[in-house]
Amino acid sequence: MDNLIMVIFGGTGDLTHRKLMPALYNLQLEGSLPKRFAVVSVARREKTDEVYRGEIYESVKRYSRNRVDGENFKQLASRIHYYRLSFDYADGYIELKRYLEDMDGRHGTDGNILFYLAVSPENFEVVTTNLNASGLASSSTSWRRVMIEKPFGEDLTSAEYLNKCITTVFGEDNIYRIDHYLGKEMLQNMLAIRFANSLFEPLWNNRFIDNVQIISSETKGVENRGSYYEKAGALKDMMQNHMMQLLTLTAMEPPVDLSANSIRDEKLKVLKAIRPFTEDDIRRNCVRGQYGPGRIADKPVVGYREEEKVSPDSNTETFAALKFYIENYRWAGVPFYIRTGKRLNNDFTQIVIEFKFLPGIPYFKNNAEVSPNLLVIKVQPEEGTYLQFNAKRPGTRNTIQPVKMDFCQNCEVGVNSPEAYERLIYDAMIGDQTLFTRWDEVEYSWRLIDPISRLWRSEKADFPNYASGSNGPSEADLLIRKDGREWRSI
Amino acid sequence: MDNLIMVIFGGTGDLTHRKLMPALYNLQLEGSLPKRFAVVSVARREKTDEVYRGEIYESVKRYSRNRVDGENFKQLASRIHYYRLSFDYADGYIELKRYLEDMDGRHGTDGNILFYLAVSPENFEVVTTNLNASGLASSSTSWRRVMIEKPFGEDLTSAEYLNKCITTVFGEDNIYRIDHYLGKEMLQNMLAIRFANSLFEPLWNNRFIDNVQIISSETKGVENRGSYYEKAGALKDMMQNHMMQLLTLTAMEPPVDLSANSIRDEKLKVLKAIRPFTEDDIRRNCVRGQYGPGRIADKPVVGYREEEKVSPDSNTETFAALKFYIENYRWAGVPFYIRTGKRLNNDFTQIVIEFKFLPGIPYFKNNAEVSPNLLVIKVQPEEGTYLQFNAKRPGTRNTIQPVKMDFCQNCEVGVNSPEAYERLIYDAMIGDQTLFTRWDEVEYSWRLIDPISRLWRSEKADFPNYASGSNGPSEADLLIRKDGREWRSI
Repeated sequence: MDNLIMVIFGGTGDLTHRKLMPALYNLQLEGSLPKRFAVVSVARREKTDEVYRGEIYESVKRYSRNRVDGENFKQLASRIHYYRLSFDYADGYIELKRYLEDMDGRHGTDGNILFYLAVSPENFEVVTTNLNASGLASSSTSWRRVMIEKPFGEDLTSAEYLNKCITTVFGEDNIYRIDHYLGKEMLQNMLAIRFANSLFEPLWNNRFIDNVQIISSETKGVENRGSYYEKAGALKDMMQNHMMQLLTLTAMEPPVDLSANSIRDEKLKVLKAIRPFTEDDIRRNCVRGQYGPGRIADKPVVGYREEEKVSPDSNTETFAALKFYIENYRWAGVPFYIRTGKRLNNDFTQIVIEFKFLPGIPYFKNNAEVSPNLLVIKVQPEEGTYLQFNAKRPGTRNTIQPVKMDFCQNCEVGVNSPEAYERLIYDAMIGDQTLFTRWDEVEYSWRLIDPISRLWRSEKADFPNYASGSNGPSEADLLIRKDGREWRSI
Repeated sequence: MDNLIMVIFGGTGDLTHRKLMPALYNLQLEGSLPKRFAVVSVARREKTDEVYRGEIYESVKRYSRNRVDGENFKQLASRIHYYRLSFDYADGYIELKRYLEDMDGRHGTDGNILFYLAVSPENFEVVTTNLNASGLASSSTSWRRVMIEKPFGEDLTSAEYLNKCITTVFGEDNIYRIDHYLGKEMLQNMLAIRFANSLFEPLWNNRFIDNVQIISSETKGVENRGSYYEKAGALKDMMQNHMMQLLTLTAMEPPVDLSANSIRDEKLKVLKAIRPFTEDDIRRNCVRGQYGPGRIADKPVVGYREEEKVSPDSNTETFAALKFYIENYRWAGVPFYIRTGKRLNNDFTQIVIEFKFLPGIPYFKNNAEVSPNLLVIKVQPEEGTYLQFNAKRPGTRNTIQPVKMDFCQNCEVGVNSPEAYERLIYDAMIGDQTLFTRWDEVEYSWRLIDPISRLWRSEKADFPNYASGSNGPSEADLLIRKDGREWRSI
């Protein structure tokens, strides 16, 4: 693992406090940071290192999954510096460069720099342009990498523009686009489950699978992110990125090896094999929703339109459900049903593989309780797998009942799965792009979502159409029921 | 369900006391006996109904899985009668016939008779011949059925002779040959697991399965059955019957329907598809053992040759392990390893389906912990299924670890699986032969076992060759290790 300085643009922001610093602390705790390492947090406000470290201490204490002990924090804190910079002040970057050279000398970090753009996308261009102009963005003797947060554009066009700003400066191989779902244990586990077992892969196709459901359900509303969410909606906040990652890992062909680009090649092929939604597809196979008032955990909550910084006649969707097909040899004819929403009745993310029902043979035919086999990948909050199959009810002749086998990896005492950001920061430090999205993945996700988004923006919906704490709009149930199927969740 | 009289020959024997009467009591308890029903226990000793009922009460109290309450027992006891008969006294059967007609009138059992031969096989001929001669074995207005206990012969020739005695009198359709393993919940469940799920059947063949292991391990020794066991040995006591039933249910093709004969047709085909053992096969692929002294549950126990009624230089095997192939399209090339033994280190019966290892692809290849997938059918004492597969160890990159999903149907509080005899007696009462072995199954099992048995009898083994409380003879480990495999158990 190379020595390096991590430079965080947006060092006083929410993300830095809640995610990045706690992740760095946990990495420090388990000895996963480079031997020689420093963090330089860059932001607009004037602040001393001491004051900044004090603020970080409070955040780490609050958000780290591990208890914070003074000794370990002290070691981390001694490597954290604060640097004041106005992002649009070009000369400031030249001074920053000198400062970083100085820090590099003090910490012995071999000239390597990992930039983290924890800033809003409007700032991507100005920061990267200035980094480039100042000479900070390249070096012939050491490396430069950049980590970028979502949202990555608002549609294909804006994403393409953003991407050009960044790739011109850093090149695709040095860009680490974060989709924090990729840092979740069970998404990484999909590779192992699918390809480290001889049991599942033979069944993983349209001969044996009836349909695939990918469901992400949240009880939370938009909270204080109203102004962001008004522009995003469920489509761009969840569907274009996280849900597509769940989809591509589930549906991809076995990659030729487990290298980052081999895996990303296969994920991309999934997106390319989905036929673009026509207007007719959208009207028939896409459902949007927006929550009204209701109850969550027995407490009344307001509707979306009553939330802070949300328009009282907002047309933004807080729920989306899509049905589509992947048109390749593996999946032809298998519908994928994907749904995500806020203020629903439950918190979970699951991938449900529903196997085909029994063939039309005369076994157990009068038995109403025979259910299809289900393999469920539990992504969060429980992490694990669940298999539902049929067995004989004890003491009966041939009465069949569904039974389950369950594997819960984070239910065991003492298992404390690392946070997504720990894994992602660590991977960027060692230069492994596997869990980051390549540009073409982003591009083809936008190609899929753009037409839906355009049509939905252009037509006023009859919102709100589901109550907070409910199961979402009834149209989403109809979407799957008209195919003779049901949403599954365990 | 027809009304009937059940006539038990051997009504004072161990089987009647320990198994049949407790089973009848449990059936009474759950209302599964015919509306009009009586039991007539036939044996040599002079005894009144009252005395006999008192003895039965003690046995039911001791052996029933349910608590015995006075009211229910009284109801059962009022239907139990004792009849004294010397099995070889022909005229006695004529008197018995009159007695049963009288009982039939008193209990209103419509003339139907279910005979249960709870006697040693030496008596089968005399009992059936006399039943026939007395006219008891047939009726034009009601039915006759006969249940027979193992051991059913000592080899093919003697089994054929016994069978002729019985089939001449009753006909195959009225004969219920007991293999009490078929009454076990998980053996019945094999049909449901294999055929009420779309998940397992596609994998259930030589493309995906590496080998199948059927293992029955007992800690018990021969106890007070030395004189029986000396003649039987593990081959005839377990292998020819119970283990073959486990095998055929695991390996059979899907039957055309779930009727008794359709299922038995398929089970038979499995036995027919096993190539008869040649002398060379036996020497290479069959291992016998006999326990010496050792420790069970930390207590010293004697060796087999020191057991009561066992010859001090006995050549009888208390352990047998076989390897063979089923030569059909489904199983060609998949070795079946079957082992059973007494005084081993554990009590369990399991069927282990070991799936093929990962194909030679470069995933996870440096990962020593990748294990083959295992599906285990737990027959006893735990009843359930167990699936072992590989997943990523949380918090690691691609370190693979085996994880398990477990379904235990008798682990739940309140689940009290019926005893095999309850199910079997009930099935004979309603005339369902599914869980009974048809003659041709017995015949082909003997065809397989006979050559092994003959060779082993003819050559003195170097016994004892395993210590009580051990894992069996080391040759059994070699048998599978020379194929690069291991015995699996969970």
